[in-house]
Amino acid sequence: MAAPREKDKDNTKLMEKIVSLCKRRGFIFQSSEIYGGINGFWDYGPLGAELKRNLRDAWWRAMTREREDVLGLDATIIMHPDIWKASGHVDTFCDMMVDCKKCKGRFRADHVGDIACPEKPSKCVGECDGEKTAPRPFNLMFKTHTGPLETADNVAYLRPETAQAIFAQFKNVLDTSRQKVPFGVCQIGKAFRNEITPKNFTFRSREFEQMELEFFIKPDEAIEAVCGEVAVWSEDADLSIPQDNWGWEMWHRYWVDQRTKFYESIGLGADVLAYYWQTPEDLAHYAKACVDILFKFPFGTDELEGIAARGDFDLSQHQKYSGKPQEFFDEKLKAALADWDEDKQLAFTGAKVAAARAKLDATTSNPTEQDYAECEKATRQWCERFFKGWYVPHVIEPSAGLDRLALAVLCAAYDEQEKTDAKGKVERVEIMRVHARISPIKVGVFPLLKNKPELVTKAREVHQLLKAHMNCFYDETGSIGKRYARQDEAGTPFCLTIDFETLGEADASLKDTVTVRHRDSNNQERMAISDLLPWLLARVQ
Amino acid sequence: MAAPREKDKDNTKLMEKIVSLCKRRGFIFQSSEIYGGINGFWDYGPLGAELKRNLRDAWWRAMTREREDVLGLDATIIMHPDIWKASGHVDTFCDMMVDCKKCKGRFRADHVGDIACPEKPSKCVGECDGEKTAPRPFNLMFKTHTGPLETADNVAYLRPETAQAIFAQFKNVLDTSRQKVPFGVCQIGKAFRNEITPKNFTFRSREFEQMELEFFIKPDEAIEAVCGEVAVWSEDADLSIPQDNWGWEMWHRYWVDQRTKFYESIGLGADVLAYYWQTPEDLAHYAKACVDILFKFPFGTDELEGIAARGDFDLSQHQKYSGKPQEFFDEKLKAALADWDEDKQLAFTGAKVAAARAKLDATTSNPTEQDYAECEKATRQWCERFFKGWYVPHVIEPSAGLDRLALAVLCAAYDEQEKTDAKGKVERVEIMRVHARISPIKVGVFPLLKNKPELVTKAREVHQLLKAHMNCFYDETGSIGKRYARQDEAGTPFCLTIDFETLGEADASLKDTVTVRHRDSNNQERMAISDLLPWLLARVQ
Repeated sequence: MAAPREKDKDNTKLMEKIVSLCKRRGFIFQSSEIYGGINGFWDYGPLGAELKRNLRDAWWRAMTREREDVLGLDATIIMHPDIWKASGHVDTFCDMMVDCKKCKGRFRADHVGDIACPEKPSKCVGECDGEKTAPRPFNLMFKTHTGPLETADNVAYLRPETAQAIFAQFKNVLDTSRQKVPFGVCQIGKAFRNEITPKNFTFRSREFEQMELEFFIKPDEAIEAVCGEVAVWSEDADLSIPQDNWGWEMWHRYWVDQRTKFYESIGLGADVLAYYWQTPEDLAHYAKACVDILFKFPFGTDELEGIAARGDFDLSQHQKYSGKPQEFFDEKLKAALADWDEDKQLAFTGAKVAAARAKLDATTSNPTEQDYAECEKATRQWCERFFKGWYVPHVIEPSAGLDRLALAVLCAAYDEQEKTDAKGKVERVEIMRVHARISPIKVGVFPLLKNKPELVTKAREVHQLLKAHMNCFYDETGSIGKRYARQDEAGTPFCLTIDFETLGEADASLKDTVTVRHRDSNNQERMAISDLLPWLLARVQ
Repeated sequence: MAAPREKDKDNTKLMEKIVSLCKRRGFIFQSSEIYGGINGFWDYGPLGAELKRNLRDAWWRAMTREREDVLGLDATIIMHPDIWKASGHVDTFCDMMVDCKKCKGRFRADHVGDIACPEKPSKCVGECDGEKTAPRPFNLMFKTHTGPLETADNVAYLRPETAQAIFAQFKNVLDTSRQKVPFGVCQIGKAFRNEITPKNFTFRSREFEQMELEFFIKPDEAIEAVCGEVAVWSEDADLSIPQDNWGWEMWHRYWVDQRTKFYESIGLGADVLAYYWQTPEDLAHYAKACVDILFKFPFGTDELEGIAARGDFDLSQHQKYSGKPQEFFDEKLKAALADWDEDKQLAFTGAKVAAARAKLDATTSNPTEQDYAECEKATRQWCERFFKGWYVPHVIEPSAGLDRLALAVLCAAYDEQEKTDAKGKVERVEIMRVHARISPIKVGVFPLLKNKPELVTKAREVHQLLKAHMNCFYDETGSIGKRYARQDEAGTPFCLTIDFETLGEADASLKDTVTVRHRDSNNQERMAISDLLPWLLARVQ
């Protein structure tokens, strides 16, 4: 995608601080670090693993558990290799590479002017005297073999996206669920791309996790036949509740709206997001629209999620390559078309054929007679199936990167402040302002002093009360200020201190209350222990 | 592992019924089915994906969120290849294979007597006239390449287990958390083994998901030095709360007990589980003990989880291969050893060296002088570090298979009954008795009639009330009996019917109550809508 991106001012220092905190506090480690690492692979430590779990859960809940029209799927990473022929990945998921015959290095053709020559680092690869091959495509899919023989028949790929599994299982899900189009299938899982130049910390990794929805909708022709006309989007359109007369455009806008609300719900609002609407030149030939939801990373504004209206391209390709129909039978469409006489059908077909020929003219240079004939034949076949109530559903695809989202959350959360202590010493402190819904630890529980058994016992009781419901951290070491600071770095939104007032020693009315300290305002309030659980649950769920 | 297994009577028919229900209701599909499938890979449909999520969540909650001494990790599938040299997988994770020079097939050496010859199926491979190569090792790791060149330098493997990532990140987790030994690190994730003969539905797959804990403990020598003696296990030992004087044996028993309680908590009790304690001949040379928790599958009693006491083998191997210390500094040990004079140290070292030599004699045939010298040198070095308070922690490893667990749950849940309807027609019905904590759908919500708007509105209200808290299924199609039957097959423990009594039409005292129907007893009771949420949460969480 050749989308122009706003290049922010270079916040290299800021990014270094975030990377450093991620390592120091156990959010993100380099994979295989004790062996020198492996380029493009990152592990999530204890805090990072919880953050990712919370993001996955929030997405899954919003996308399927709280909806009736989306179902989940959990498919394998290695699938039948023909899936990647049908999807186009075997042929076109490539970067152009040149080999240097002198140093035997392989380089991205569009990068030879930027990369230092491994043998003469003062020169770039493009300027060194090694003879280069002509640029050749290098497929970005990781390749392996299934079964005992390493032959061409046994080649398999690590999926470069989770989406294709959803298309490949579309019919199984349709046939085994009680769903009708429109409905969606979503999946969270690992994907792999053998990127030549992984970069920007976890942003461009070779192994990453995707959260994808394929939302199957009726073609606009079916909406028009059933509802008379297709709803047209405008700035003040109501996108809150899907309507029967929505075509691809309204559904596409609806999902952009839904996804924006999702990001807001975990603390990523309009101040940190941006949108890039792909131009006709950016779009794939089958795509009707695509918008990228971007985040303002310190290294530049870049993509978190793409939301594409992909037409019926994917399911049609699988229908063609597998030979298995990927159609939906639409009872309402069948009923609506019952009174179409032959003339009306002919007129409809004629208009479709004319439109298809016009599109061929617009997208193909010098189409041949055979191209026209094939185009017309396919269109007529589509019309015949349509008149019987059958079609291949179209799809809206909100496709998000989980690692990018985790990184966005960490970048948005990062804050540093200078604090002056009682002795006048100035200290730099770091605070991770992660939204309570997704923070790795929800609450810290501290006895004021660790050598007072009454305080420790009470603090243990409070900890016990809460930990079945949320991730809590019990800490009795160091001053309360130090313990707050540790939780600030971990992104914990609330801390509870059990002190002598909790024991009711000075003021009986404060018995069984604790100090609740808010990370973001630094405010403190007293709260009854019996009120804690519902108060916290309302904020962290 | 050459463990003898109890071979149950062949329940092939039962297994076929379970596989058929899994497909028909969307628990499990063959991966890439529209392309003819791919051997050893399975996808989870909508119900299966929810079941797996619930199992993952239950495990994660029991293993880390509800504990203070276990942290999570989320590492990559592709890691530095040296990790698999250190772990021994590159050299020894192999099956012996023979090639047939005639048909070019490759077969497991121990299977040639069982497999039909591809060219003459009436004969087995071992008896056909094709000339065979001598057996050669075939590594079961899937191999790929990172970066643009497919050279030996760029070989990488898909992890055959999740455990090694935990060992490789042990120091990072130790250094960034506030944990001290004993503590654990756990992980859930995909692993891959290029099995020659995947079989028994999802039981032996090439791509599968593991849930592993590495629980790091002090060596018994440290316990003895600090506590005076190491606790000895007996049948009536109290395993409920870990104690300071526990050595590997008590910790191993503790984890067997914890894991058994976990299985009980999701409905897999003593009636469906079995245990196999590996004999000294079964055990790896470094392992002190290993117990397999087995499930009585229809195809035989087989492994769900292995719980191994692995000594310090894994971390020591990584220390050796990476050159990075994997030691823990034990303050209490240092303090306990402060009053050991030189004589005591010498006596301790002498006894250790003698024990190490004796072990060498017992495990190696004809050890050389060099073997003895190396063994003694390593033991002396270990003692020197030990006297300073440093050691490589030992480990207890509960390692469970998520796909096997999901399959066990489905097999244990499967029940069929004959029902006679009002007209005397006998019908076979299938009921999935999945525990409420892990069932994909928690509750079905039905209006008695779909053409009574008051019932539908009320049912929608109830559905809305519950769905933010649990997975609910709204259904208004068909008779209530049919709707119960659909949920029985999906494993849904409870169904709610909104009827005319809910509306308070006949009896005002029943207003705003619903019928709760229990899947397992088939009993029905009336319950106030306001009581539903807490009543359900207590059962499904």
